[in-house]
Amino acid sequence: MNPNWISDPIKPLNRDMENLALARQGQLTKPPGALGQLEALAVHLAAMQGRERPAVERAVIAIFAADHGVVAENISAFPQAVTGEMVKNFARGGAAISVLARTLDADLEVINLGTVNDPGPLPGLVREFIAPMSANCAREPAMTGVQLAQALGAGRGSALRAVEKGAQVYIGGEMGIGNTTAAAALGCALLGASPQALAGPGTGLDAAGVKHKVAVLERALALHRAHFGDPVECLRRVGGFEIGALTGAYLTCAQRGLPVLVDGFISTAAALTAVRIVPRVADWLVYGHGSAEPGHAFLLQALGARPLLNLGMRLGEGSGAAVALPVLRLACALHNGMATFAEAAVSEKL
Amino acid sequence: MNPNWISDPIKPLNRDMENLALARQGQLTKPPGALGQLEALAVHLAAMQGRERPAVERAVIAIFAADHGVVAENISAFPQAVTGEMVKNFARGGAAISVLARTLDADLEVINLGTVNDPGPLPGLVREFIAPMSANCAREPAMTGVQLAQALGAGRGSALRAVEKGAQVYIGGEMGIGNTTAAAALGCALLGASPQALAGPGTGLDAAGVKHKVAVLERALALHRAHFGDPVECLRRVGGFEIGALTGAYLTCAQRGLPVLVDGFISTAAALTAVRIVPRVADWLVYGHGSAEPGHAFLLQALGARPLLNLGMRLGEGSGAAVALPVLRLACALHNGMATFAEAAVSEKL
Repeated sequence: MNPNWISDPIKPLNRDMENLALARQGQLTKPPGALGQLEALAVHLAAMQGRERPAVERAVIAIFAADHGVVAENISAFPQAVTGEMVKNFARGGAAISVLARTLDADLEVINLGTVNDPGPLPGLVREFIAPMSANCAREPAMTGVQLAQALGAGRGSALRAVEKGAQVYIGGEMGIGNTTAAAALGCALLGASPQALAGPGTGLDAAGVKHKVAVLERALALHRAHFGDPVECLRRVGGFEIGALTGAYLTCAQRGLPVLVDGFISTAAALTAVRIVPRVADWLVYGHGSAEPGHAFLLQALGARPLLNLGMRLGEGSGAAVALPVLRLACALHNGMATFAEAAVSEKL
Repeated sequence: MNPNWISDPIKPLNRDMENLALARQGQLTKPPGALGQLEALAVHLAAMQGRERPAVERAVIAIFAADHGVVAENISAFPQAVTGEMVKNFARGGAAISVLARTLDADLEVINLGTVNDPGPLPGLVREFIAPMSANCAREPAMTGVQLAQALGAGRGSALRAVEKGAQVYIGGEMGIGNTTAAAALGCALLGASPQALAGPGTGLDAAGVKHKVAVLERALALHRAHFGDPVECLRRVGGFEIGALTGAYLTCAQRGLPVLVDGFISTAAALTAVRIVPRVADWLVYGHGSAEPGHAFLLQALGARPLLNLGMRLGEGSGAAVALPVLRLACALHNGMATFAEAAVSEKL
């Protein structure tokens, strides 16, 4: 039932270019290691892009919006109508990610996968409407097999468009009232973790709200537990359209050789899913930021990932990854533009 | 003996604009607090700049270079000639900060305060030569009173030029073989801390090298301890020309109302000195990054400061602050450019 492209081979990293980039780092006019994570980042980008001097000027940001049936369980501080309202706000340029994309000169694509409050077609909006919302995972699987394939395919389509446009880095983001619950459920399913480890306040639940969210998660996990051995089935049962799309996008980026800058909690749940489906996807993922949503640290640890930024952000929309994009760009600028000890006639270490 | 401008009043923050900016943050289309540190940063910049919608597009980066007599004690992994060589590299555009300034469209000024290997006058280099190096603080005060006044004045001159140019944010940086030793000594003197807490590998000492550095610091502190009650005298006795210049620059920025983005260990030692001289200087300082040099965390904690980035950098040159500049710019862009709930017709929290 899975789309057959899911198991296409992942593009291998270019180890020759990685070694050339590593050697170049050692010759730049700075003490070895003095640029910290920026050095490893430039080398990793060189390995992904297959060039000694990488570049991430051409960035594509894709935001997937979708509503969640589990909102019927009262697990969100905001009304469900906000998902569709925010789709309009994305398209009109007023949302955080709209501002970030403009400021960073990145290409922004908004994909509506299904919202209860349907804004309809809008200029600049890609409409791949699957259903007004996923089903309530506390009562039944969130998606049918066909819906899951549509969601994965929507992400794949976005990644392929980015490749077609010549993107040098791909940022996926999401909007969906209730999706910290879906992401927490998916993390629990994939990692065998308890809901307490992954449930957090989301957009602003109080302690009682989080406690209730944990209870809802326990019900959902009890219902679907027999199927947790298969990551695709986990995604279908407790994920959501936008999480499926992000998973499809990350898989496709890794197959086609497009570096991914992962955002926060929801995006990382999708990244974890993609890595559980095909482990080598991990080679293509850079983690932009650590979210204030407490479950994010748990997912990052499971992935062995260290995010670039920790600014206490918890907005989603790809916003944390977008704020990290300048770090990637500066890592490349330093790697490509600094003089070597020989070029600058600077003395090396004693 | 201190220059009389040192005690000029610090410009107060604009609390009206701070409140307007805070109110605006609460109306933007995001859950309250979801942009984490970016929200507080935008509000702080509004308070400093006296405008509801702050901006940091026009940035000045000033790099102060100087050599240190304490290098005679063998406390550096790099030869002293590197300071002058790097001054040339700054001026010719090959150093990390040269690349960062170009990429960030920031104004870069390099000030030679005194290097053993003297590159002489160069295009783009401000020459305010005090002496080939400071004196060896393990044997005598690092600076005479006149030299200290020159160093403070060089920093003041740089800050005043930045104000004159219409800078919206000021980044100070430094280059000086041996200056992690001077910064550690200064931190110990100001905080009554032990050398173990503040001595680190700098550009690349091994464990034995760090142990020796601690011993040198102990000698220097024993020699000057009677004078540690006066922060200016601490600076004169165990600091250096570039640390004095940074201190003078930060004091002047705070007097004239120019926000400062502080760099790493050396810059933070200067910031601590400025704050000990006039506590309200603290209102004008934003900390760009936490350095991998272990003493930096100690100084930040003493200042109650939380840096924006933690990327394991330890280069100096203002490079960590420069990498943080896009975070400030994006915080402003979001604050100024996002739609409010009313403008976007998005529903608020339940």
